[in-house]
Amino acid sequence: MFFKARRYQFCPSCGAPCVYQVPADDNRERATCTRCGTIHYENPINVVGTLPVWGEGPDGQVLLCKRAIEPRYGLWTLPAGFLELGETAIEGAKRETDEEAGAQVEMQELYCLLNVVSVGQIHLFYRARLLSPEFDPGPETLEARLFHEHEVPWDQIAFRTVRQTLQHFFEDRRLQRPYSLHSGDIV
Amino acid sequence: MFFKARRYQFCPSCGAPCVYQVPADDNRERATCTRCGTIHYENPINVVGTLPVWGEGPDGQVLLCKRAIEPRYGLWTLPAGFLELGETAIEGAKRETDEEAGAQVEMQELYCLLNVVSVGQIHLFYRARLLSPEFDPGPETLEARLFHEHEVPWDQIAFRTVRQTLQHFFEDRRLQRPYSLHSGDIV
Repeated sequence: MFFKARRYQFCPSCGAPCVYQVPADDNRERATCTRCGTIHYENPINVVGTLPVWGEGPDGQVLLCKRAIEPRYGLWTLPAGFLELGETAIEGAKRETDEEAGAQVEMQELYCLLNVVSVGQIHLFYRARLLSPEFDPGPETLEARLFHEHEVPWDQIAFRTVRQTLQHFFEDRRLQRPYSLHSGDIV
Repeated sequence: MFFKARRYQFCPSCGAPCVYQVPADDNRERATCTRCGTIHYENPINVVGTLPVWGEGPDGQVLLCKRAIEPRYGLWTLPAGFLELGETAIEGAKRETDEEAGAQVEMQELYCLLNVVSVGQIHLFYRARLLSPEFDPGPETLEARLFHEHEVPWDQIAFRTVRQTLQHFFEDRRLQRPYSLHSGDIV
């Protein structure tokens, strides 16, 4: 059904088998331990990233990373990854930008919130101002480089949320609209 | 450390003991199965809710729910709860509003995104227009009622993210600012 649902065959607290059943005062099946009774919930998680831009106005370039890992090896993405415990969304997005591209940025506002229900994820992209055009890609990235709008490899973009974030940005910029939040769903 | 971290004593896939260690190509300790090798990640989850308003302008009233469950039994909250697999953030917020208050709403924009790092949560509140002043509270709610700004029980608000969302709303309304996204952290 969904990417991470129904993954509890055994109880992570005591190791006994789990069954999926609807707890009292609930309306969904949850993994429930047959020995200690602990209920284990499964919920969507967050992917956080940035839309890093170098330069102002219509000549500003965006940073993309060519993936060195699966899924989507060899395709281009914005720097992004799973939000970790112990950090805010904006901290996670900045960390991923450093880890994947070695890019230093000044973080700006949340720009896209995109639900990817089929895999139980929310993708959050923040606008970011690049402080330098020099990058130092990490092990998950083959190459990090800047693209003018007309250079973006639209047929080699790794993820639909990345494509949609880039499309919103170029459209807002072309129409000289303020960069306010875009919310949407990937279906 | 954090609310949901280090909860894998046993592997949910095979039931064998887990140890926390840093996987190859990673930089954090993860629960790793000593038998099947599966790595189990722990990530922040999302709480989604609404700020339901009845009426327009400075006389508009907000809907609060008096909690019938712990934590914070007897204190007042905006309708909110954990985002579930299979739904978007806005769908989850609408569902919680129905489940906790029996309130029917027209959903509006995302209004607050608040990181609660200490418990590994992001709280997302959407503005919502109440379609009726009649409510039908569910089992998690003792009472659902409308409050004018001067009636809000500020010393009996259940959660800091709820307090902050209400404060932003009344301030934006008082200053006649557009209702755009507020991002912040609860520390």
